[in-house]
Amino acid sequence: MVKRYDSDKMKQLVFKIYQGYGFSVKQSEQLAEMLIYTDLHGIESHGVQRLIMYDDFIQNGKIRVHSKPEIVKETDVSAVIDAHFGLGQLNGIFSMDLAIKKAKQHGIGIVTTRNSGHYGIAGYYANLAAEQGLIGMSSCNSRPAMLPTHATKAFVGTNPIAFAMPAKPHTFIFDCATTTVPQGKIEVYNKLEKDLPALWVAKNGNEPVYDHRDQADFAALRDPEANVGLAPLGGVSEDTGSHKGFGLGIIVEVFTSILSMGNISTEITPDDLSVGPCQSFTVIDPAIFGDKDKIIDRFSRYLQDIRELPAIPGKTIYVHGDKEAIAYEDRKKNGIIIDDRTLEEIVGIATRLGVDYAAAIN
Amino acid sequence: MVKRYDSDKMKQLVFKIYQGYGFSVKQSEQLAEMLIYTDLHGIESHGVQRLIMYDDFIQNGKIRVHSKPEIVKETDVSAVIDAHFGLGQLNGIFSMDLAIKKAKQHGIGIVTTRNSGHYGIAGYYANLAAEQGLIGMSSCNSRPAMLPTHATKAFVGTNPIAFAMPAKPHTFIFDCATTTVPQGKIEVYNKLEKDLPALWVAKNGNEPVYDHRDQADFAALRDPEANVGLAPLGGVSEDTGSHKGFGLGIIVEVFTSILSMGNISTEITPDDLSVGPCQSFTVIDPAIFGDKDKIIDRFSRYLQDIRELPAIPGKTIYVHGDKEAIAYEDRKKNGIIIDDRTLEEIVGIATRLGVDYAAAIN
Repeated sequence: MVKRYDSDKMKQLVFKIYQGYGFSVKQSEQLAEMLIYTDLHGIESHGVQRLIMYDDFIQNGKIRVHSKPEIVKETDVSAVIDAHFGLGQLNGIFSMDLAIKKAKQHGIGIVTTRNSGHYGIAGYYANLAAEQGLIGMSSCNSRPAMLPTHATKAFVGTNPIAFAMPAKPHTFIFDCATTTVPQGKIEVYNKLEKDLPALWVAKNGNEPVYDHRDQADFAALRDPEANVGLAPLGGVSEDTGSHKGFGLGIIVEVFTSILSMGNISTEITPDDLSVGPCQSFTVIDPAIFGDKDKIIDRFSRYLQDIRELPAIPGKTIYVHGDKEAIAYEDRKKNGIIIDDRTLEEIVGIATRLGVDYAAAIN
Repeated sequence: MVKRYDSDKMKQLVFKIYQGYGFSVKQSEQLAEMLIYTDLHGIESHGVQRLIMYDDFIQNGKIRVHSKPEIVKETDVSAVIDAHFGLGQLNGIFSMDLAIKKAKQHGIGIVTTRNSGHYGIAGYYANLAAEQGLIGMSSCNSRPAMLPTHATKAFVGTNPIAFAMPAKPHTFIFDCATTTVPQGKIEVYNKLEKDLPALWVAKNGNEPVYDHRDQADFAALRDPEANVGLAPLGGVSEDTGSHKGFGLGIIVEVFTSILSMGNISTEITPDDLSVGPCQSFTVIDPAIFGDKDKIIDRFSRYLQDIRELPAIPGKTIYVHGDKEAIAYEDRKKNGIIIDDRTLEEIVGIATRLGVDYAAAIN
């Protein structure tokens, strides 16, 4: 069962929870803003649903509440950050703010961050740049999940690529795992006891796993030694472009772990407290290429022309960011969508921290 | 029928042909080097096979032999080039050299080029940066070819993304269309009268076209008003990730035509002499992030670990650039592979230009 909850009240509760852990007022505001943004844009898998996961990480010391990200190397257009295992969202906002500052001064900024934590949706950080009229990109690596083309064992992470650029009537936001689907989508289908609709998971390199009753195979997705993994974007055969999704995953690894000298996918394990994922943040000011308003107007026209193409009967052509904009209108008016189990988890955390949750859930 | 030809002798012939058109010694050397590089790396579709296409463009004035690329806007880290319809390869080399120069001085360089011509394989330009120890990227747009997800008419180009980074024992080179396959691959299957092995072409948005006898459908790929197009990477359904390939195609359009204010895909038509494709060239010096040798060593180890994963029986795990390195060893030793029809075309061009071709074809 899911219910609707007022986003402002829920944001206030999340703010109080993070204050309860010992985060500062500003940090708690940033965290509440980020998580509620995610729910408001209809990406419930990565919003307050994840509070329990971060709670676990804070409890077991994987996330260190009082850590501060440190700039370990810097040029006019770049920086490497050691996040010292602080909460991923705070590292992400710090790193993206630095990339934005560099792009405003020098046209381009690329920041790569190591020893970070899970930072939620990559698109959030890309959008921080777009909100200031800039092009923003962000990526992160993860534990092994993707099967390299022809391999029977996962190696590359789900390694998403996010890209945001200002446009009218709303920002273009692309935010996609380089696997066909992210891990969370498999979990949703499993919870609903639905069979997968396409080749998202493969066993022994190229045998599709569809049936939701194949629980052992789905559980094996969390075992890096198992013969099960996620298909790259493009599937598991070169004929369908498997090597393309696989290669894009490697490129994300370059911008995250390789350039920052942080932990690569195979070094990331949920139980090891001394390793953390890596993230990258790139910002480009369109004004270094031409008249920013003209560029954005032309891009908006280009996207609108796509929306207006003839479509398959009964289908809508969405440009990236359209679905999120529709979800935002709905959630802002009617409330964000939270399932009963997640609500119970939030209430449990609030109770433990002595935070009053009554206003948020009524 | 195909035969093998010595690459040095064929390079000399290509050099003489370009001199015959009126290109300078240096330009003719660059063009011969680029085309033979392509054949040596086993990408025969884009090597000397394309001489006849460029010959057509030069003959009909679409490519202007005496044009020079002009820098119309520039910062420390960026430039916009108006190529004035010079030969794409020359614009590409000029633009990438400028991006390399900027990256060497300031860490990063992004150059976007408008009014260019067909520039061959994007990976060639990315590799120019990698040869100097830098990360190189290049993309280009094209006439409409890709079906946006749920659309029944092509709109986005095949819009490849190339990424090269130094590694041992050879450079990592990713060079992929954001459609499932490029147009040229369809043409090869059609010429061989082979059915397509996967959903590469769709009619009415989501009906696969496989049968090589469906000639009207394949011919319609060249008609922007037709109801046939190439599937994005990820196919034509959101379930298989269609929106991801589609979105990557849009991102390439941003870096090529949108930022340069050049012609977008729908404005590019083979017959209009006043429009040309756009290209982008990005270079990043890994040294701005850390010790370059350590970064490259770590990346090489990462790639080698992937090669050594357990594989599907009978299959090899290739990292991007491996197949090209194998082809290079073979072609360098045994000659590049040219089909009889292409040879005939080359002889025809040489004869018309009064160039002696005997040494190259014996």
